[in-house]
Amino acid sequence: MDCIFCKIINNEILSFKVYEDADVLAFLDVNPAAEGHTLVIPKKHFENIFDIDSAYLEKVGAAAKKIAEKMKESLGAQGVNLYHGSGRAAEQGVFHFHLHVVPRRTGDGIDFTAAIERKGKKLSPDEMESVRKKLSLV
Amino acid sequence: MDCIFCKIINNEILSFKVYEDADVLAFLDVNPAAEGHTLVIPKKHFENIFDIDSAYLEKVGAAAKKIAEKMKESLGAQGVNLYHGSGRAAEQGVFHFHLHVVPRRTGDGIDFTAAIERKGKKLSPDEMESVRKKLSLV
Repeated sequence: MDCIFCKIINNEILSFKVYEDADVLAFLDVNPAAEGHTLVIPKKHFENIFDIDSAYLEKVGAAAKKIAEKMKESLGAQGVNLYHGSGRAAEQGVFHFHLHVVPRRTGDGIDFTAAIERKGKKLSPDEMESVRKKLSLV
Repeated sequence: MDCIFCKIINNEILSFKVYEDADVLAFLDVNPAAEGHTLVIPKKHFENIFDIDSAYLEKVGAAAKKIAEKMKESLGAQGVNLYHGSGRAAEQGVFHFHLHVVPRRTGDGIDFTAAIERKGKKLSPDEMESVRKKLSLV
């Protein structure tokens, strides 16, 4: 399969690994938003959140927590963001599931808030209830 | 405790719930980036990724996957983003752990890529290795 992350897993492409266990690998993003920006991936190929096995998703999350803690301890991060995209419409570029862990420092110029705030419209309670009903899993 | 999300959990503040189980609650964001924008939270108060119990983190992730699938099925989402901030430096506003699940449609105007790309600088292999060593958990 012509998947760049599978090639990284198989050591066919060099990467800078920061975490590895039987099911998960984490390595530095080559286009970092900040020093230490890391990608966490399952070692088995899944395209996105829709097809990933829940067990792998759990392990990716657990690794991200460990990496976040290490960023605070060793890189002077004051906070971290997690970011993930599934699907071209969600700006996914590499079609092997990956979770970004981005170390943050005050004044670093990253602005996730601008990406997500005030793009949609504020809805009335009736409109909220209409969306809620469509999306409801309760 | 004066936590707005704890008040939502305790039904002291109205919310539009889309998912609930013993440990996790998910409800519509009142300032949606897109129709259906949802927040997933643990029912126990944790501030951020540094202090959350791993078991709760797993459950938040599992709920996010279910919600993402439902967004595709019922809201016509073509993709989804996950987004999380821990710490004021990471743009966290409410200090109760929460994970955003944002349904995406082509042309919706959201631009996460702009938030994270080309903010840091591209490093040489030696510089990458130096960062890797500091962050390494392997």
